[in-house]
Amino acid sequence: MKTQIAIIGAGPSGLLLGQLLHNAGIDTVIIERQSPDYVLGRIRAGVLEQGMVDLLREAGVGERMDREGLVHDGFELAFNDRVEHINLRELTGGKTVMIYGQTEVTRDLMQARRASGAPTCYDASDVQLHELKGEKPYVTFVQDGTPVRLDCDLIAGCDGYHGVSRKSIPDGVLKAFERVYPFGWLGVLADTPPVNEELIYASHERGFALCSMRSPTRTRYYVQVASDEKVEDWSDQRFWDELKSRLPEPIAAKLITGPSIEKSIAPLRSFVVEPMQYGHLFLVGDAAHIVPPTGAKGLNLAASDVSTLYRILLKYYREGRQDLLEQYSQICLRRVWIAERFSWWMTSILHQFPGTDAFTQRMQQAELEYFVSTEAGRTSIAENYVGLPYEPVE
Amino acid sequence: MKTQIAIIGAGPSGLLLGQLLHNAGIDTVIIERQSPDYVLGRIRAGVLEQGMVDLLREAGVGERMDREGLVHDGFELAFNDRVEHINLRELTGGKTVMIYGQTEVTRDLMQARRASGAPTCYDASDVQLHELKGEKPYVTFVQDGTPVRLDCDLIAGCDGYHGVSRKSIPDGVLKAFERVYPFGWLGVLADTPPVNEELIYASHERGFALCSMRSPTRTRYYVQVASDEKVEDWSDQRFWDELKSRLPEPIAAKLITGPSIEKSIAPLRSFVVEPMQYGHLFLVGDAAHIVPPTGAKGLNLAASDVSTLYRILLKYYREGRQDLLEQYSQICLRRVWIAERFSWWMTSILHQFPGTDAFTQRMQQAELEYFVSTEAGRTSIAENYVGLPYEPVE
Repeated sequence: MKTQIAIIGAGPSGLLLGQLLHNAGIDTVIIERQSPDYVLGRIRAGVLEQGMVDLLREAGVGERMDREGLVHDGFELAFNDRVEHINLRELTGGKTVMIYGQTEVTRDLMQARRASGAPTCYDASDVQLHELKGEKPYVTFVQDGTPVRLDCDLIAGCDGYHGVSRKSIPDGVLKAFERVYPFGWLGVLADTPPVNEELIYASHERGFALCSMRSPTRTRYYVQVASDEKVEDWSDQRFWDELKSRLPEPIAAKLITGPSIEKSIAPLRSFVVEPMQYGHLFLVGDAAHIVPPTGAKGLNLAASDVSTLYRILLKYYREGRQDLLEQYSQICLRRVWIAERFSWWMTSILHQFPGTDAFTQRMQQAELEYFVSTEAGRTSIAENYVGLPYEPVE
Repeated sequence: MKTQIAIIGAGPSGLLLGQLLHNAGIDTVIIERQSPDYVLGRIRAGVLEQGMVDLLREAGVGERMDREGLVHDGFELAFNDRVEHINLRELTGGKTVMIYGQTEVTRDLMQARRASGAPTCYDASDVQLHELKGEKPYVTFVQDGTPVRLDCDLIAGCDGYHGVSRKSIPDGVLKAFERVYPFGWLGVLADTPPVNEELIYASHERGFALCSMRSPTRTRYYVQVASDEKVEDWSDQRFWDELKSRLPEPIAAKLITGPSIEKSIAPLRSFVVEPMQYGHLFLVGDAAHIVPPTGAKGLNLAASDVSTLYRILLKYYREGRQDLLEQYSQICLRRVWIAERFSWWMTSILHQFPGTDAFTQRMQQAELEYFVSTEAGRTSIAENYVGLPYEPVE
């Protein structure tokens, strides 16, 4: 088998890159270790930056999102029994975010991929990348018991943190930067109406809480828990009680509870590798970097990597711009570090950190107070939340 | 002896409060443990916020400052071989800072005090505060071998971190918040022309450096050093070499060196006590809080405490507003924590912290990069640097 771009991973990054390239007449094959149902079963974030919304539209997969997604002009920050509104639209000169679940994005992209006729190899086992620094790279894998070899020009590693792509780069090439936060998020998905039209990020002495939603009838709520908490110890009742205890009274009073349809604990971590490329392999999204979920930057950052790689590949194939291939990592990392900073900062100011001294706690409160109560501070939060501009590819 | 307000400490805070009260017809006696020459010998900061400049003018002691002080419209941030200008005037709607040494402020205030005829007791030993929670407080001390008792309505503790005022408050009343930074500043005063018209704050892998000045012919330079460094180990030559190594090449090339006329190492610390009052005693400036010198907030924060206490005392004596006396601490602490945050933040982003992990180092760089490269970030730096508005007393 032969293609121009081998894409490892059929999550939203791989599918979006595939769709953009397909529309531009560049051949791709997507190789995915799991089944389509498994991929769709992953519950992830649901806040899309303006840049990602625009990119989905550019890829021709924005129709259902524009019909069913919820445009949010702002969000709420709750702390010290106050609720402060961050007006994204006003603070950023008209930018907003779109509430539309990652699962739905993936579903739309899968459908577009199927409609395009471009090949996706699901349930591919033993995926291996070869000759990343050689003349011509290729990918091997096993499908339905049959070994397959896929020759290609370049490989896009869109297979997440645990994927084979990053692990195919020899030891000593990548420098890793990591922070593991001393807590996790316990999340519950429920078919209940949202407690508030906009998201509420709550800082509370019992720990952080987030009121989010996927649609007008489906909610996603989170509470910060200790790293060693077990999901089995959290009945629905215990979760709702804990959530209510961390919200300002008037909001807690409005909260409508119901049976959870998904409940899980996710760790919080910051992670970046440099560089994001090795020979013919380009790492995209979670394969190269992880952000803690505070601020919902994970999927959005993957989308900006996709945008960068797509624009580089266009110029490479159409204008012979070989030089741009070498700039992929550098271009991506500028925006990666900006988003890592914001995610780290949002996490730092909103969570309770066990064992923190009294001065540090006051600095955390003073940061929140300063940023929320000044125009410059609110603007800073808003411009990062809607997403800073994509880096140009020139 | 009898007065309305007993002021402990004849540094700039005590003298400024005394001058404002004297002008308003409120009697004060200032009690100082040291001699006038000792007080004038302390080398301190020299960047005055707009609010402090206005307050000095209001006190009638701004004439020489307005004649000899240097108005600075901005300052420079140097990092990664870049030099970025923070235009204070443009970013804050016209606000600036005044370069005028604390020694000069003190000198002007001393002269005004002498001219006013209001008493200052220098070389007072064994200063003790009495009946802070009683009917009528009083202060005792020994001068020229003679015990003196000063009866008063209220006491202003303007005697700094090591002074007797805070220590006169019983154990368990104050809650202290403290951070000791793992480094100090080695400072050199020299009669050389400044390397740059504006201050330069430099972040470098060898450590932080600051190029400052007191006048067009007198400079004050600093380099970050380890906490256990000894000033004896730093010859002038070693200091100038180290300073140059931390500045961008074009700036280092312009640096004019000369013999030091003062050289010392100061530790960096953040410190706040709550509340800032106890009965009839009001803590002002360093007696209640210390900031690390990055951002030059120490003297300025003392001035805003002075402003608050002065305006409360005016309303107390003129309108009988007893209730305001109880609000002193609360009003001051709002601005104290804002300035503590900025000083902590400027210190955190510009210094090298020994033993910091790679991710934290990148977050430090990303913070600097983000704040310097966005309008919201630059505005945030500028509005804090010129000083956020004084809290109203109503």
